[in-house]
Amino acid sequence: MTAPTSKRDYFYNYFEDNKDRLLSEYFEFLRFETISAEPACAGHLRACCAWLCRYIEKLGLAAKIWETGGHPLILAGNPPADPAKPTVLLYNHYDVQPVDPLALWKSPPFEPALIGDNIFARGASDNKGQCFFVLSALAAMLARDSSLPVNVKLLIEGEEEYGSSHMYDTLEQKKIDIGADALYIVDAGLRSPDEPAVTLGCRGIITLTIEATGSSIDLHSGEHGGTVYNPNHALVEILAKLRDSSGRITVPGFYDRVRPLSYDEANELCFDFDENQYFEAFGAKPTGGEIGFGPLQSAWIRPTVEINGISGGYAGEGFKTVIPAQAIAKVSCRLVPDQCPQEIGSLVADFLRRQTPPGITLKVTVEGGIGKPVRTRTSSKATQAAAQAYAEVFGKPCKYVLTGGSIPISEALAEASGAEIVYLGYGLPEDNAHAPNECFSISRIKQGMATIGRLLEILGA
Amino acid sequence: MTAPTSKRDYFYNYFEDNKDRLLSEYFEFLRFETISAEPACAGHLRACCAWLCRYIEKLGLAAKIWETGGHPLILAGNPPADPAKPTVLLYNHYDVQPVDPLALWKSPPFEPALIGDNIFARGASDNKGQCFFVLSALAAMLARDSSLPVNVKLLIEGEEEYGSSHMYDTLEQKKIDIGADALYIVDAGLRSPDEPAVTLGCRGIITLTIEATGSSIDLHSGEHGGTVYNPNHALVEILAKLRDSSGRITVPGFYDRVRPLSYDEANELCFDFDENQYFEAFGAKPTGGEIGFGPLQSAWIRPTVEINGISGGYAGEGFKTVIPAQAIAKVSCRLVPDQCPQEIGSLVADFLRRQTPPGITLKVTVEGGIGKPVRTRTSSKATQAAAQAYAEVFGKPCKYVLTGGSIPISEALAEASGAEIVYLGYGLPEDNAHAPNECFSISRIKQGMATIGRLLEILGA
Repeated sequence: MTAPTSKRDYFYNYFEDNKDRLLSEYFEFLRFETISAEPACAGHLRACCAWLCRYIEKLGLAAKIWETGGHPLILAGNPPADPAKPTVLLYNHYDVQPVDPLALWKSPPFEPALIGDNIFARGASDNKGQCFFVLSALAAMLARDSSLPVNVKLLIEGEEEYGSSHMYDTLEQKKIDIGADALYIVDAGLRSPDEPAVTLGCRGIITLTIEATGSSIDLHSGEHGGTVYNPNHALVEILAKLRDSSGRITVPGFYDRVRPLSYDEANELCFDFDENQYFEAFGAKPTGGEIGFGPLQSAWIRPTVEINGISGGYAGEGFKTVIPAQAIAKVSCRLVPDQCPQEIGSLVADFLRRQTPPGITLKVTVEGGIGKPVRTRTSSKATQAAAQAYAEVFGKPCKYVLTGGSIPISEALAEASGAEIVYLGYGLPEDNAHAPNECFSISRIKQGMATIGRLLEILGA
Repeated sequence: MTAPTSKRDYFYNYFEDNKDRLLSEYFEFLRFETISAEPACAGHLRACCAWLCRYIEKLGLAAKIWETGGHPLILAGNPPADPAKPTVLLYNHYDVQPVDPLALWKSPPFEPALIGDNIFARGASDNKGQCFFVLSALAAMLARDSSLPVNVKLLIEGEEEYGSSHMYDTLEQKKIDIGADALYIVDAGLRSPDEPAVTLGCRGIITLTIEATGSSIDLHSGEHGGTVYNPNHALVEILAKLRDSSGRITVPGFYDRVRPLSYDEANELCFDFDENQYFEAFGAKPTGGEIGFGPLQSAWIRPTVEINGISGGYAGEGFKTVIPAQAIAKVSCRLVPDQCPQEIGSLVADFLRRQTPPGITLKVTVEGGIGKPVRTRTSSKATQAAAQAYAEVFGKPCKYVLTGGSIPISEALAEASGAEIVYLGYGLPEDNAHAPNECFSISRIKQGMATIGRLLEILGA
């Protein structure tokens, strides 16, 4: 779909006319130290939430802070709802990742630094930047029309980077109405700054902790080596059995519920992958997938099992000839429709337990932080509107992609809202989200604003 | 061989008659902070070496400090040599292990604490305690006879806990004469305090560091999982191939030079092993060996490959869904006669490199700290004298054992001295050598003294 870019102009002009004020407000938002994982930041999260609530009210919308038992969330919108108009639920979060290692930051993480087109700060991209362009799009429309073209519901939570543990319960227990026709998770991104793309789904996730214990104390590998079963060996032998030489996961039943791509998906998803560009960005070759699947197929439509962490004995400078009492691994599985996280967790745990060698005690724990896989339809109004809005902003056809990542709360939100779900956003791999020197750009604030604005206009037309 | 215990009496009486002085001197020795691995301790090592040199001279022996380029060593003895008498080289070391974690010590590591029969201090057992009973045995004989029954050479080094890196070169370059008929490495121990045993050999050692690299930066396991080959997976898959399901090492050529036990060895070595006692001490079952070999056979007469350390990604509290840029492992092989450490290092490194999956860069480094395996003869005069001395002290037959550990310098010393080598000592597993709250006992100082004294008398008879 090609489109004229003229329809983005109102939003671009609004941004340019109000640039200084908007940037100053964005920077004010960024200065709140809203690290949800750090208990000491609780006050900052609360202050940020209150600031955000007032900010939304000043735009002319109704906003309410909901207590969750953790960091509060905001639900806002333009009541009273007009039943003739579709209802659009927009999801963002105001909490951010921790800032460690602080020494690697070139400027203080909570003092935004504007360098050229880029803004450096924790949360600049993920997700305060994306939240801010959503609010700015609404501001632009409200300034022009004193109304919005659709019924908007804003859900802005404070625990996304910490597992969203309280949000879903709160929505349910307090019977907060988030019913909608379309749900946009504005926490996604593009693969490249000049390639518009709507994200049609994400993978699910289940995580496990595996502890192999061989003795009550660390043992000398000379005196005891050969006598005892080294937990490091047990762990590598057990974990090595998770995949065969073709990269296929060997856990019985693991692939049973994997749904093949539909005709639409197979035709519409863009699996283009530039090996050289990837190597330049990450220093890695795309050799991790199963035989028969390309680099992005392996990351998007196939499930994985990844050892995220392994540790046993001493692996630092020098050498300690020890047989550790225990070795530990952290494993995550990324899942695709229609795999069930709990079921996969059990299958993997049972499989691992069956590999335990004699003399080793294996403890496998299926952890929390579960996320179901999500795949949305290209044919839905929600998807089509997003694709058209992107196409108008970029002046070129919009692609359809997936993400291999997981947004655990999204499936629950889709279910609770009854809405068609779509992931969108302007994050880029080079934003350093979750890393030192996180950044976003003024250009993308403008583009994001115009995309959200046009999206709502299209849906309300 | 059974023996009357009366011959030990002179040494026991000497100890009791001089107990306060001896303990006070032993404590003085223990107070030097001789951690060879800590550069800040260099002065303490030098001071201890000087103290030891004066101490030996006061006994009536000649002693000389030799500069090594590292911490100095002492060579002492009773010149002029009497060609009619055998020459006995006794090896000890005055350096000790680091004291971390300091918080776990119940008393300061360099302030000896006498509790009942036990002395708690770093080095109390390894090796200052054993060095001290050697010196006390000589003192007792010199006090009685003003001479020794054999030509004694004492070699006391200051870098044993740090790889003995300078000692062998120094001996060679300075043409220091350590030629002897018998060499006693007084840095070994017993398996139980009431079971006299001569140690007939130790295993060799070679260590390797293995680094698997997949990307230039840590990657998100959602976005990239499936696309890249996770170095943690590469490492576990590679390391798992080192052994087959029977526990046999799969590296081609690994066992080629393993010499079968001789008739004498097979008959004389005591492989008795108490599973319950072992479990009580270490909380471990003896399941680590190859099929067909018992717990002590596996630790003494069979080579091993042990993963001493493995680390990749995040394995701490909580979860980080990362694909690390790199994973690392530290592997050691314990070797038996006639395996060659350098050759085994190359075989293992080549084998590991051949397992590298596509997209992974594997760096395998064969490290220093090499030790050759040693096995001495039961029939040698040196072994027979040690066995008789032990039997006299305990009043029961002496057993022959091996150690699965490695004393890398011992083979070099045996070669340079041309002597029959024997390992002996009074260390016990419960001494916490290399751990917090290291201890030794007054009883074993006495027993060690008598054993060394009787040993020299038997050899000189």
